[in-house]
Amino acid sequence: MTEAAPPPPRGFPPEEFHARRDRAQALMAERDLDAVLLTTDADIRWATGFLTRFWESPTRPWFVILPALGDPVAVIPEIGGRLMRASWLSDIRTWPSPDYADDGLLPLSAALTELTPPNGRIGVPSGPETHLRLPLLAWSRLPELIGARRLTDDGGVMRACRAVKSEREIAKIRAACAIAGRAFARIGGEVRVGDPLERIFRRYQALCLEEGADWIAYLAGGAGPGGCEDVISPADATPLAAGDVLMLDAGVVHDGHFCDYDRNFSVGPPSPATADAHARLIEATRAGFDAARPGATAADLFAAMDAVLAGGAAGPTPGRLGHGLGLQLTEPPSLLPQDRTVLAPGMVLTLEPSLETAPGRLLVHEENIVIRERGAEWLTTPAPPEIPVVGA
Amino acid sequence: MTEAAPPPPRGFPPEEFHARRDRAQALMAERDLDAVLLTTDADIRWATGFLTRFWESPTRPWFVILPALGDPVAVIPEIGGRLMRASWLSDIRTWPSPDYADDGLLPLSAALTELTPPNGRIGVPSGPETHLRLPLLAWSRLPELIGARRLTDDGGVMRACRAVKSEREIAKIRAACAIAGRAFARIGGEVRVGDPLERIFRRYQALCLEEGADWIAYLAGGAGPGGCEDVISPADATPLAAGDVLMLDAGVVHDGHFCDYDRNFSVGPPSPATADAHARLIEATRAGFDAARPGATAADLFAAMDAVLAGGAAGPTPGRLGHGLGLQLTEPPSLLPQDRTVLAPGMVLTLEPSLETAPGRLLVHEENIVIRERGAEWLTTPAPPEIPVVGA
Repeated sequence: MTEAAPPPPRGFPPEEFHARRDRAQALMAERDLDAVLLTTDADIRWATGFLTRFWESPTRPWFVILPALGDPVAVIPEIGGRLMRASWLSDIRTWPSPDYADDGLLPLSAALTELTPPNGRIGVPSGPETHLRLPLLAWSRLPELIGARRLTDDGGVMRACRAVKSEREIAKIRAACAIAGRAFARIGGEVRVGDPLERIFRRYQALCLEEGADWIAYLAGGAGPGGCEDVISPADATPLAAGDVLMLDAGVVHDGHFCDYDRNFSVGPPSPATADAHARLIEATRAGFDAARPGATAADLFAAMDAVLAGGAAGPTPGRLGHGLGLQLTEPPSLLPQDRTVLAPGMVLTLEPSLETAPGRLLVHEENIVIRERGAEWLTTPAPPEIPVVGA
Repeated sequence: MTEAAPPPPRGFPPEEFHARRDRAQALMAERDLDAVLLTTDADIRWATGFLTRFWESPTRPWFVILPALGDPVAVIPEIGGRLMRASWLSDIRTWPSPDYADDGLLPLSAALTELTPPNGRIGVPSGPETHLRLPLLAWSRLPELIGARRLTDDGGVMRACRAVKSEREIAKIRAACAIAGRAFARIGGEVRVGDPLERIFRRYQALCLEEGADWIAYLAGGAGPGGCEDVISPADATPLAAGDVLMLDAGVVHDGHFCDYDRNFSVGPPSPATADAHARLIEATRAGFDAARPGATAADLFAAMDAVLAGGAAGPTPGRLGHGLGLQLTEPPSLLPQDRTVLAPGMVLTLEPSLETAPGRLLVHEENIVIRERGAEWLTTPAPPEIPVVGA
């Protein structure tokens, strides 16, 4: 393990969650919501701190209700009872799931009925980038169980709350970035011409674990002359060749918080075109960084990076030039011309410019930043313009 | 890396997918469905072979339509176009997602309109263990875009299709089991009293990678006197103590296919109670194995295991004594008294008996099997009754 500052302590003190609750309830009041109903890993983790990889199992539904007043109430399978009781919540109701007669709808509707007025409005995150983690047939039965209460969109309450990170969250994201960065620093020295890509992917993940990752939720990338063919493929046995650009894009998790950034490596000396493209991506990243400040929009960051990239053929394929991150690998907003999200201090973003270096060949660079009062701050250690050479 | 048989080749030949398509279309005909609409990773992977970790990003919706006749049609974000074009599908439609004006609903509804009759019935997996991977607001707009066509439950088509695995799938699950097994065989020798649990978790994942895992989608467990307090917690810095039982429960992925099983280790010599409990779990597993044959039900396997466990206090907390697995860590059915699923050759299951060894202390054992014509076959190498001793 590389010498490194110790990561921040695990978990959060109760005041972190009190502040989240208060922020959500203020937005709920503006939207006339009597409760917000959460069903997904990231939303429930945000409200409660409940951290488990058990979401990988789709079997059981999980619910957390944030009422207009008071603390969140968990209505969850018994299997999660002990872990949730270790959270800051005091009102935790469990049922023995899976229960084919009723898998949680009755305790859920009882709690909703108790926590909201008879004509209450219950917000459920329903906009872009959300989903309902509950079978549609169960969802369709819920209205009849809650009387005159109405299920409606949450009006973006959760999106707005989650977009702005606390200092404690930022420290965890920074720790995730540092872990991935130490592994990036080590992998270069181990790469050889002829290595199957899948071996490099395995080794990079192992290095992340050695450097302190809890787990690696995401690794994609590829290798090819001048860049990858796409940015979402898993690895196969294709051997690395001289002249390839190797790209690794990592979503490393530390205490439930993600980094999401990549590094490119030239296998042997880069062609002038590759060297230029990499330098241009770094320049675009820097332009995005310089544009990132409170009051700027996501679209402004896109425009700043696109101005640098426009001399080339700014690749339309990845579709955006960065995005939010934190409790998930990707979160709103998107750095896109249409995205008018106004940046605010505490927002954590990726800057992810890309260039099409040849037809069907992409070079993508990515860094992570946080918006501060006076501008942006790096969470990753930004890469220099020179693409690193490996496998020599 | 331990000496091991090479894993089967990556991917599947087209005939694998032709057989899947035919099976699904036969069930669709019985249910009078004109198409099935798929939105989730596992369902889309089953129909197409599309394998990526990019599902970790919730930003973009993905759709695959399986019509009543003909091959599946993909309606997906451009970012996935190249990878999907490497699949067996020929009809692949993409849009530049994210698109805030219309993020895929128009190309989706155009494809549904083209592929189904005007009064067509479109099945969407909606029963237990499913979810819709599409924001509710988008879902609510879809009916108005498809005329008189009706969106309805798929009647369990996807559940039935996915429950029975092909020989090629079984080989991949077996390979995942073997990888996790080699890592289990190595981790014992590395465990020492005083090791923080999080270090053991990291090291176990690194060993899985060394042994050939593509990634580790799940690792849970714990350690404590006589067993864990729960089976879903992530690791923390708690140091291992003499007398603890260490449990590691692993969901290792090989070429998109999972194993899901655990191993227990006694830190120093086990107490007689721990030794007995472990032996009883192995006996219960064996009883489940012996009961597993075509025509038996999931409930029968529960009963066979529970008969062995019943002398103790069969822990209600984990809620079931095993489940399906394959493209996901857990799949239907559940080994529960209420689950009347009839076992058939090709079904892959976990046997997961548990005992409460003291109030709030669980010992859980888990193996993976496949149902064959004449009974069950192990996919894991079954553990002996004696709990292995580590850290001595």
